[in-house]
Amino acid sequence: MNTYQRMVLASRPSGEVQASDFRLETADVPAIADGQILIRNHYLSLDPYMRGRMSDAKSYAEPQPLDATMIGGTVGQVVESKHPKFAAGDFVAGMFGWSEIGVSDGALLRKLDTTHIPLSAYLGPVGMPGMTAWFGFNQIMQAKAGETVVVSAASGAVGSVVGQLAKLRGCRAVGIAGGKDKCDYVVNELGFDACIDYKAGNLEGDLAAATPDGVDAIFENVGGAVFDAALARTNAFARVALCGMIAGYNGEDVPIRNARVLLTNRLTVRGFIVSEHMELWPQGLTELGGLVATGKLKYRESIADGLAAAPEAFMGLLKGKNFGKQLVKLI
Amino acid sequence: MNTYQRMVLASRPSGEVQASDFRLETADVPAIADGQILIRNHYLSLDPYMRGRMSDAKSYAEPQPLDATMIGGTVGQVVESKHPKFAAGDFVAGMFGWSEIGVSDGALLRKLDTTHIPLSAYLGPVGMPGMTAWFGFNQIMQAKAGETVVVSAASGAVGSVVGQLAKLRGCRAVGIAGGKDKCDYVVNELGFDACIDYKAGNLEGDLAAATPDGVDAIFENVGGAVFDAALARTNAFARVALCGMIAGYNGEDVPIRNARVLLTNRLTVRGFIVSEHMELWPQGLTELGGLVATGKLKYRESIADGLAAAPEAFMGLLKGKNFGKQLVKLI
Repeated sequence: MNTYQRMVLASRPSGEVQASDFRLETADVPAIADGQILIRNHYLSLDPYMRGRMSDAKSYAEPQPLDATMIGGTVGQVVESKHPKFAAGDFVAGMFGWSEIGVSDGALLRKLDTTHIPLSAYLGPVGMPGMTAWFGFNQIMQAKAGETVVVSAASGAVGSVVGQLAKLRGCRAVGIAGGKDKCDYVVNELGFDACIDYKAGNLEGDLAAATPDGVDAIFENVGGAVFDAALARTNAFARVALCGMIAGYNGEDVPIRNARVLLTNRLTVRGFIVSEHMELWPQGLTELGGLVATGKLKYRESIADGLAAAPEAFMGLLKGKNFGKQLVKLI
Repeated sequence: MNTYQRMVLASRPSGEVQASDFRLETADVPAIADGQILIRNHYLSLDPYMRGRMSDAKSYAEPQPLDATMIGGTVGQVVESKHPKFAAGDFVAGMFGWSEIGVSDGALLRKLDTTHIPLSAYLGPVGMPGMTAWFGFNQIMQAKAGETVVVSAASGAVGSVVGQLAKLRGCRAVGIAGGKDKCDYVVNELGFDACIDYKAGNLEGDLAAATPDGVDAIFENVGGAVFDAALARTNAFARVALCGMIAGYNGEDVPIRNARVLLTNRLTVRGFIVSEHMELWPQGLTELGGLVATGKLKYRESIADGLAAAPEAFMGLLKGKNFGKQLVKLI
């Protein structure tokens, strides 16, 4: 392998992301220096946060530079190492972006044990999405047994973990997802108590019926009408982990119309970015890894084949076309 | 005094409150039983929360019943006591509503020391409005010296205290108020660093100029465009004490349009009702009383004369026509 492929940001989208916003490039595999590691990426993770980075609006992170490799989390295998702590054959997680290879000095490289946990799971329930769920659930929602929890994008990489953690805690877990298939999966496979199909046209009524005792905690991935419907069901002192507003990722406003409820129900709403809480990752990933290894935490993947398929998979993710964690297989 | 006057809720307002929503009644002063206290109210407090109680929409409190005395906080003097802990002549605070007299069993009656603190101040900076400011500032905003704090309705009974507490802590305090007179008062008398006149037509630009280092904490009394403008200036991890949404008290929606900022800036927004935190009142009122007695906490009152003037004063309060704490003098 003397060359590899990578996907760069060709232009910033105005509105919906287009395939033409990306450009596939071929580059020479670099020679590594002393202290470096060369990694062949096996899977790339596609995540909604990437849409934010494609814009240059003020946000918590610097925008993705134009003509540079799109950022992203990856798992792969060391092919060559001049670093004492890594050896060829090691499985590792890194942030090597939309690229078939990565070069690391080891600083942010994490060695992975694939004995009981599949490699790709380290991009899902035992990776950033899992930690996002774990942090929001434990640090913000703080739901107790018997309380009712609502999770939007419930079949997704993050939402699916939130609801299963809630069930393990003894909560009533109610999901919101788009379409009957996803809702069936959320209830029958993941074990949520109920799942509302927001595409069925009766979001508020269906959610009210599924939350007879009101809502004590919300994990919000979507924003807009879905969030407003959940807010309308809150009990006093409910907690909201605000993780994403995918409804507005194409630049639309996503107002909170039910803002009055924040006051009348004395809610606490907290926006968060899990990468700012790295000190909790060892504890969280240990718990999540244990749950995956023992089959107590289920997950599902949508796998696109090859880097050339990544833009279309990403555009589908933003429209909810994926079903489970969206990955790109690179090998 | 054999009869007294009281104001009852005659009808629930649809939209703006009308004078015809109230009815003044004359009633016989009741004879008190053993263990009871008869109080002549001197001042009635008018507060925005009363607008919420006039509606029967779901809220944190039961609606005000029709044909019953409007609720409200009062200060006055004991005229007759058959209770061992109170004597004629004692100054007291209670919740006797829009009424010239009150009868108490002593349970929620608080004796007041007017040696260094004027009686009416116990309805303002040393009463519920002061405690609302104190709680929001200390428990939610948790602003440190050097941070920038934004306070809406800054010349009002609550906002004026928030900003002065912020200055005492060493923060930069920026108010938002309606009109040049109020803004001049907020800066020149209360000592805020700046005050933005939202009626001047350049809210966002003026607020940006007054918060060159961004905003670390918001005390929100208004909602709507004023809140959105403050959200747009937040720094990462800013805290929002959500106290009121007077912009929507006539039933209008008050959406948060800048909802995305909650996520991108990882804000914590907490709605609260100070009466649910009574355990902190002794500490808070002691601090606030000391600041008023020593002249470190300034306040201003708008005083309507007589119960018959209360509806008009209340309607003015909802439109921001008052200037400082709105009271009704009852004697």
